[in-house]
Amino acid sequence: MALAERILAAKFNKPGYDLVDHHTYVLASDGDLMEGLSHEAASFAGHLGLGRLIVLYDDNHISIDGSTDLSFSDDVPGRFASYGWHVQKVDGHDMAAIEGAIQEARKDSQRPSLIACRTHIGFGSPQQDTAKVHGTPLGEEGLKSTKKQFGWDPEARFLVPEEVREYFKGYQVSGSEIKSQWKKMVDSYKNAHPDLAEEWDRYVAGQLTPGWEDHLPNFLPDKPLATRSASGKVLDTVSPHLPTLVGGSADLTPSNNTRTSEAIDIAPGEFGGNYIHYGVREHGMGSIMTGLALHGLRPYGGTFLIFSDYMRPTIRLAAMMGLPVIYVFTHDSIGLGEDGPTHQPVEHLTSLRTIPNLVVIRPSDGNETATAWKVALQRNEGPTALVLTRQGLPQNSPIDNGLERGAYVLRSATDAKPDILLIGTGSEVSIAFEAANRLSDEGINAQVVSMPSWELFDAQPAAYRESILPPGVPGVAIEAGVSLAWGRYLGTENSRVIGVDRYGASAPYQTIYENYGLTPQRVVEEVKQLMG
Amino acid sequence: MALAERILAAKFNKPGYDLVDHHTYVLASDGDLMEGLSHEAASFAGHLGLGRLIVLYDDNHISIDGSTDLSFSDDVPGRFASYGWHVQKVDGHDMAAIEGAIQEARKDSQRPSLIACRTHIGFGSPQQDTAKVHGTPLGEEGLKSTKKQFGWDPEARFLVPEEVREYFKGYQVSGSEIKSQWKKMVDSYKNAHPDLAEEWDRYVAGQLTPGWEDHLPNFLPDKPLATRSASGKVLDTVSPHLPTLVGGSADLTPSNNTRTSEAIDIAPGEFGGNYIHYGVREHGMGSIMTGLALHGLRPYGGTFLIFSDYMRPTIRLAAMMGLPVIYVFTHDSIGLGEDGPTHQPVEHLTSLRTIPNLVVIRPSDGNETATAWKVALQRNEGPTALVLTRQGLPQNSPIDNGLERGAYVLRSATDAKPDILLIGTGSEVSIAFEAANRLSDEGINAQVVSMPSWELFDAQPAAYRESILPPGVPGVAIEAGVSLAWGRYLGTENSRVIGVDRYGASAPYQTIYENYGLTPQRVVEEVKQLMG
Repeated sequence: MALAERILAAKFNKPGYDLVDHHTYVLASDGDLMEGLSHEAASFAGHLGLGRLIVLYDDNHISIDGSTDLSFSDDVPGRFASYGWHVQKVDGHDMAAIEGAIQEARKDSQRPSLIACRTHIGFGSPQQDTAKVHGTPLGEEGLKSTKKQFGWDPEARFLVPEEVREYFKGYQVSGSEIKSQWKKMVDSYKNAHPDLAEEWDRYVAGQLTPGWEDHLPNFLPDKPLATRSASGKVLDTVSPHLPTLVGGSADLTPSNNTRTSEAIDIAPGEFGGNYIHYGVREHGMGSIMTGLALHGLRPYGGTFLIFSDYMRPTIRLAAMMGLPVIYVFTHDSIGLGEDGPTHQPVEHLTSLRTIPNLVVIRPSDGNETATAWKVALQRNEGPTALVLTRQGLPQNSPIDNGLERGAYVLRSATDAKPDILLIGTGSEVSIAFEAANRLSDEGINAQVVSMPSWELFDAQPAAYRESILPPGVPGVAIEAGVSLAWGRYLGTENSRVIGVDRYGASAPYQTIYENYGLTPQRVVEEVKQLMG
Repeated sequence: MALAERILAAKFNKPGYDLVDHHTYVLASDGDLMEGLSHEAASFAGHLGLGRLIVLYDDNHISIDGSTDLSFSDDVPGRFASYGWHVQKVDGHDMAAIEGAIQEARKDSQRPSLIACRTHIGFGSPQQDTAKVHGTPLGEEGLKSTKKQFGWDPEARFLVPEEVREYFKGYQVSGSEIKSQWKKMVDSYKNAHPDLAEEWDRYVAGQLTPGWEDHLPNFLPDKPLATRSASGKVLDTVSPHLPTLVGGSADLTPSNNTRTSEAIDIAPGEFGGNYIHYGVREHGMGSIMTGLALHGLRPYGGTFLIFSDYMRPTIRLAAMMGLPVIYVFTHDSIGLGEDGPTHQPVEHLTSLRTIPNLVVIRPSDGNETATAWKVALQRNEGPTALVLTRQGLPQNSPIDNGLERGAYVLRSATDAKPDILLIGTGSEVSIAFEAANRLSDEGINAQVVSMPSWELFDAQPAAYRESILPPGVPGVAIEAGVSLAWGRYLGTENSRVIGVDRYGASAPYQTIYENYGLTPQRVVEEVKQLMG
């Protein structure tokens, strides 16, 4: 969030027009600071010098198991100092001290600030400084006793004392004034900087530049192209027309093809760029993208598909909040080859499909990749995962392919009713395609379905779905991942799934595909067995 | 790993018998230290004072994107000092300096040690200090030039110089001597401490104490019991008979029911216990359990099922390495109630099932929970996830239930061939059970299948599987999670899945179950619709 503020400020602020200049405040607990994510985020914020980020650390020495002494001995201020943060310590029940520390923090515009506030959980209650008060309500007697402790009427409920009401009224007035001044400034900005103001309006409305889609490339059958490379070409042509797009990678930029040739790096003190080197921080990258999206920017970020596991909590939150984050997951199967089983995703495609409101797209070639980006960028109601190959793939689909509907017939059967359906996703579509050609030579009439996105397909009307997967026609699905969920489309009878239900292996990818039976020949054999 | 050494030393070492006293060495890169996991592990190691842990930090300033200046400005030694580590800095190409630093590190038995070694990637090659050399081979010319740089024969391949061979021969001799001395000590230990020696032999062989299963409790129909509570009772009765069992929780001990009444906490300087307060460090907990299992201990650790997302990379590694780690995932569905959608897993059960060689078990009551623990503890070839409820469930299954086969008939149909199959897992089994009773009143003959583990069921012979799920019989599955993969057992026709294909909600669990249609009434309705 604090980075989004800096990026927006660099993009829109002009002398006399500080459209964006807010601070970002965080309340963090002991538990938050034990989590690994706190390291990734704090280290990154320190590196970039996000001076408008102020973290109030609720240092209460208590977590659910009991005293933090059970598991936690960090010198937290020392730790944050090692990240290049401005660090202060205060009594967390001394309002004046907190106020003073916040003022000091705001003065330091070059470093994020940690204010370690020593507090007492359940302050003033009979259960002060105990783990119990973390999760259990105080109860009738506990409430009364606490109110008495502070000189309040023990019987009063939902009471806001008059002096509190008055105090906040002051902020109501001053807040209104600040808001109307800011609105005036924005109005006058429209005259002073009309082009930027137009962009600002689109940004505020969450709209992309009209006509950006016209810049999507058309991929022609040529030499094999990896979908990660196709993705890079798409970004190269559309990025210049999408000013709110902010790319990045968790230290796999040359592999993810996420950095366009004209990208400008975001760096300490330089926030006018559009590319972020997130470092080896996948979880942090996911969370930072969520923060960027919450500020109206359009983030995408790359890593290997295997490392989507590091990001799942943040993918889930983006999906739950309905934020249009785009994950660029390359090296999407055993097809990555020599790096071997630790780096070869097999369960990830299916496990991502389980996340509600995440759209997962695994395009099969260049044009499907272009359409996948179109879908992802046009999607406002939730995140999209693009699942891309390391290895080259032939170009089979036209520019106006059916990816937007999730699945479509890529190669029709010659008769109205096919003998067999061959269903593939991503890199396995061309295997299905080749198998269909061989079957055709033997007089078997196969319909090849490219099925890049289950979620998009499931959202289609039944009539469309049945036109693609006609009931009663036997099917063979081929996908370089676990077969677990394919019964959803193929049922338990009259069908086969050629998948990868074990860990991968280290070898050139052609060798692994051959050994794991992901070949046209295997598809042909399965079809013949199935058709008896 | 370093914690395992301490636990084993505390368990087995006696005066004159230091059976376990090794050091654990880590080679860590910039990237490793950017990852959040490094924070969880290093903070925890510092807290426990694991003095025999020595980390050599390969501080080469280069990652895949280029210079680490792009994303990383941590004062790494300062950071580790804040965790209470002993910290040194050396020239990473000065062998004598590294040797000296290691000796210093070994002298400090109370603090883990970081040795920051400033190195140059691709040292001596034409690509020294570049990102390219991280992932790309040097090539013919690069190899030759590098060899020349060090005064080696540029043409020699796979050369081990004679002086290196001689140097290592010395270690061969001294290593053999140390080994045979250690073996003698172990032999004499068998006379001096026969009981412990027996335990040691079992530990080395990876065997559990014979007869431990006799202590599994029998749960009788009584008041409703959460499976997390049943799990706690199982641990209470079996733990005293399993000396290599090491429990713990990521700061959810009172919720996960993972700490037995006789457990002893592991704490700084006190490693003789059997319970670990991991702090709010799920990923760290998973990785530490992997290290314990690699040392032959039998670790289990608890968190909420939702937080399994934080641990996926380490669950996958344990599964790939075939290690018997046990994950205790409680609060397993929308049934956790008031904590709401951020804490309610819906996709996690299915997404865990996608991981090869992980056995996922979701027991439906006390006796199934006891059998689940039996399966998990008897499993040597990979990890097991126990998926447990927060809410109370009725006791339906006998002590000798069919959980070990993954699925079994809990309530037979009255005729040989049932009209309908009702399949449930975990907390939804009792809903299926109740629905079967209601259907019976209406003359519909339902077979209730409790299906706690897909992996165990899939491993059964086809004949058994068909006896449980007879082909051609329509089925309704009910599970408080995404329905995505149920087509695997039910096919696409003649079946229904009552699942949760969206995020949860915050309310008392009964209200959510009602609103999400996870009720006997809904099952009855679906059955009637299905049977026309």
